[in-house]
Amino acid sequence: MARVVVDVMLKPEILDPQGKAVHGALPRLGFEGVSGVRQGKRFELELEGELTSARLAEVHAIAEKLLSNPVIEDFAVHVEEHEGSPA
Amino acid sequence: MARVVVDVMLKPEILDPQGKAVHGALPRLGFEGVSGVRQGKRFELELEGELTSARLAEVHAIAEKLLSNPVIEDFAVHVEEHEGSPA
Repeated sequence: MARVVVDVMLKPEILDPQGKAVHGALPRLGFEGVSGVRQGKRFELELEGELTSARLAEVHAIAEKLLSNPVIEDFAVHVEEHEGSPA
Repeated sequence: MARVVVDVMLKPEILDPQGKAVHGALPRLGFEGVSGVRQGKRFELELEGELTSARLAEVHAIAEKLLSNPVIEDFAVHVEEHEGSPA
């Protein structure tokens, strides 16, 4: 079992109204000194069996085709934990 | 300038229909071997000035009060990059 995380964020040049809303709410709650907020998505995928480079490439394909919209979003894939065969 | 990331995920015992929908779509797209998918949120906060432990505590408060619902969600705070004073 391995847990692979896919982070999907809007590209920097794309307006992020959710992040803007959070940013606007901060001073009202008494928090100063935050110059920007961006909101994105985080997916945790539990993979069966061993994590091979072929499996990781498959996760990249999943991220590109299903989890993100490559026109407006960037994604990053990273392995979070690797149960059963601790490194 | 420092970038702090807050990951917000539904607690494990809370049903995640978005993750379930993604999981259900995978075999239809030809991807096998994924035993589970959970979907959550990722916030990137740009902080002005230096990142002190007091600022980090403030981000924890922001995560708890504004970015997550502690009844159904867990959050994790981590520092992604630290421009100006590379560690």
